[in-house]
Amino acid sequence: MPFSSPSGVITLTTDFGHQGPFVGVMKGQIYGRFAAARIVDLGHEHLAHWPPEAGFWLARSLRYFPAGTVHVAVVDPGVGTARDIAIVVTQGHALLAPDNGLLSATLAQDPAAELRHLDMAMLARFGLGRPSATFHGRDIFAPLAAEIARGSVNPAELGSIVPALIPGWIEEPEVVSGVVSGVVITTDRFGNLITNISAAHLAQLVNPRVHAGGQILPLRRTYGDVAPGQYLALVNSFGVLEIALAEGDAAAGLGLSRGAPVVGRDIARRG
Amino acid sequence: MPFSSPSGVITLTTDFGHQGPFVGVMKGQIYGRFAAARIVDLGHEHLAHWPPEAGFWLARSLRYFPAGTVHVAVVDPGVGTARDIAIVVTQGHALLAPDNGLLSATLAQDPAAELRHLDMAMLARFGLGRPSATFHGRDIFAPLAAEIARGSVNPAELGSIVPALIPGWIEEPEVVSGVVSGVVITTDRFGNLITNISAAHLAQLVNPRVHAGGQILPLRRTYGDVAPGQYLALVNSFGVLEIALAEGDAAAGLGLSRGAPVVGRDIARRG
Amino acid sequence: MPFSSPSGVITLTTDFGHQGPFVGVMKGQIYGRFAAARIVDLGHEHLAHWPPEAGFWLARSLRYFPAGTVHVAVVDPGVGTARDIAIVVTQGHALLAPDNGLLSATLAQDPAAELRHLDMAMLARFGLGRPSATFHGRDIFAPLAAEIARGSVNPAELGSIVPALIPGWIEEPEVVSGVVSGVVITTDRFGNLITNISAAHLAQLVNPRVHAGGQILPLRRTYGDVAPGQYLALVNSFGVLEIALAEGDAAAGLGLSRGAPVVGRDIARRG
Repeated sequence: MPFSSPSGVITLTTDFGHQGPFVGVMKGQIYGRFAAARIVDLGHEHLAHWPPEAGFWLARSLRYFPAGTVHVAVVDPGVGTARDIAIVVTQGHALLAPDNGLLSATLAQDPAAELRHLDMAMLARFGLGRPSATFHGRDIFAPLAAEIARGSVNPAELGSIVPALIPGWIEEPEVVSGVVSGVVITTDRFGNLITNISAAHLAQLVNPRVHAGGQILPLRRTYGDVAPGQYLALVNSFGVLEIALAEGDAAAGLGLSRGAPVVGRDIARRG
Repeated sequence: MPFSSPSGVITLTTDFGHQGPFVGVMKGQIYGRFAAARIVDLGHEHLAHWPPEAGFWLARSLRYFPAGTVHVAVVDPGVGTARDIAIVVTQGHALLAPDNGLLSATLAQDPAAELRHLDMAMLARFGLGRPSATFHGRDIFAPLAAEIARGSVNPAELGSIVPALIPGWIEEPEVVSGVVSGVVITTDRFGNLITNISAAHLAQLVNPRVHAGGQILPLRRTYGDVAPGQYLALVNSFGVLEIALAEGDAAAGLGLSRGAPVVGRDIARRG
Repeated sequence: MPFSSPSGVITLTTDFGHQGPFVGVMKGQIYGRFAAARIVDLGHEHLAHWPPEAGFWLARSLRYFPAGTVHVAVVDPGVGTARDIAIVVTQGHALLAPDNGLLSATLAQDPAAELRHLDMAMLARFGLGRPSATFHGRDIFAPLAAEIARGSVNPAELGSIVPALIPGWIEEPEVVSGVVSGVVITTDRFGNLITNISAAHLAQLVNPRVHAGGQILPLRRTYGDVAPGQYLALVNSFGVLEIALAEGDAAAGLGLSRGAPVVGRDIARRG
């Protein structure tokens, strides 16, 4: 689906945190170009300098925004170096991010996504010809998003198609012989452990059990399906495997964090 | 006062924190249905799984929003179980929350509030018939709030009147024999201790002193009324008793936190 | 440049943090008066009770907002005492803040800024005659900002010109004999140390080196110009000297924080 009619919504996903005015000045740049923008923070506490977490959430969150939304994601340890800027159109959404693997989870969801590198010569057209060396979020990404969201330019005009982007930093899980191996991508505020194993992976297993932190966990529907204080696994509301402790903190309880291995194993195939 | 003319403003009060896209996707769902919404975060760092704190702030904050505002509050340890969804109309505002005691502080302010349980069969009318088991904030509360805020449905259409909601987790204080006993409900960033004892309670005492953390504190008007480094009690800007340390952190200094007892005592009645 | 045509944008800079509804109710007050406001959080995690950090960021962020923006900054340890409220017009922007030194960095940038004290008698005109003693952000600053932003009053009507505001808490650096001495004003989430030494100061040195935390640091263009794990100094995207550790945390590594001395020294003048 091409990017046709902008919704006027722009989302921001960064690792800038809430200290300092970094996100605020991006919004200033957006409103200066597009006064009617509606801006949504999709999170600024993503793990610093590590694109997979921000990229995971962006991929999983896209569908909850109206088609025609512009998504800016900036976790950008290579800012100011020769790295490219990626422009992706998928499912009617436009995404802008440094080409450093951040968008790999989104691409894994849509083989038909259109991939481009920003033609840096286009920046002059929008008065962006002299960005700072260290804050492209403010000097390139936010203003470009505003221009796309107000309909003054289509993503397809901003650069040529490229065959691929830089690969993601984390491999996508695969199901092999009734086993799927993934990792914890992130935790939420409650200490739930969120993995990159999706419902589609688990659907390939007849009767899955989940192995994590030395425990074997049952797959349940919701937190209230076990007693407070018990561990469980569930397919969460974003369609991925999550490990939780009912009314508790699974990350602390199991001593697991980002990168920890999680395995789904089909007990119907055992023995 | 019924809910008549929506203001277009929607507030969000949750315990979701700022890690992850949880609040962001709620906003995506709102803008997808009501592009002109103005969304205000009333706080997402409320104590997890403990409805009284979020409910306290919501009750005390309502009056600072225009009539016709829709308030969504989600601290929801029972999500996915059989708990009801409460819809309350008070003072021209509409409130949506899990029926788990969260709204008790609001109801204590307005005996004439209209209480309803959401008729779950209504969800199909708005295309919400298949919510996830674990994220009703995104799948039910945010979209319903958008429909109310854009005027496509009135809260009174969404369910039948019920005589009462689930009681709050904390008792409302009462004045007995010149003494009022309350608790610390929350602290703010400065370490001020905020209690559920209101100005109306204190007005029933002739000459109140405040007992907390082994200290007897004078009741003053503002922080600057004592020297830096001194403790004081005051009726804060939300109309409740607060214990503060001028230019310091009373919570750390007194070793008190949520749930700590605080007593107002009328010295005019002593001895 | 006078404040003529409001942009409709209002920024909020406070030390209120994200616990509690403090920022949210300010927005409620704004939308109640000006439904079309676009509100930008310029940061609420600024150092509590210490105006220089919030004031530094506000001064450095102004230029990224459209002319006609109203900026509210509330770091206000003297709230409820006799301190004045400052109204400043600079470069077509209007600023509202307690007169406690917070705006000094902004004034240092523009000797032609118009300085006023709010005439408290004006508050009655806007129905603000009885503010709380402890939350002027909600009861005075936010509503006044809304009135200015919607064009119902010009800052020049709100009070008489004053010759000066309360001085800042930190001296502005000066270049003397090839040396400029400044301090760390704040750190960002990455542990970068941000100083009050500006590019204009450094431009007065022929070949500057930076001394901080017992180290002598080279001046580079961007983080990627040194290997991961190496310290560097750079003029950051806000035009001030920053000390960084490539892909690391300079504040932790050097043991420096707010207030630490930083010196730029011209090696061309040595010996």
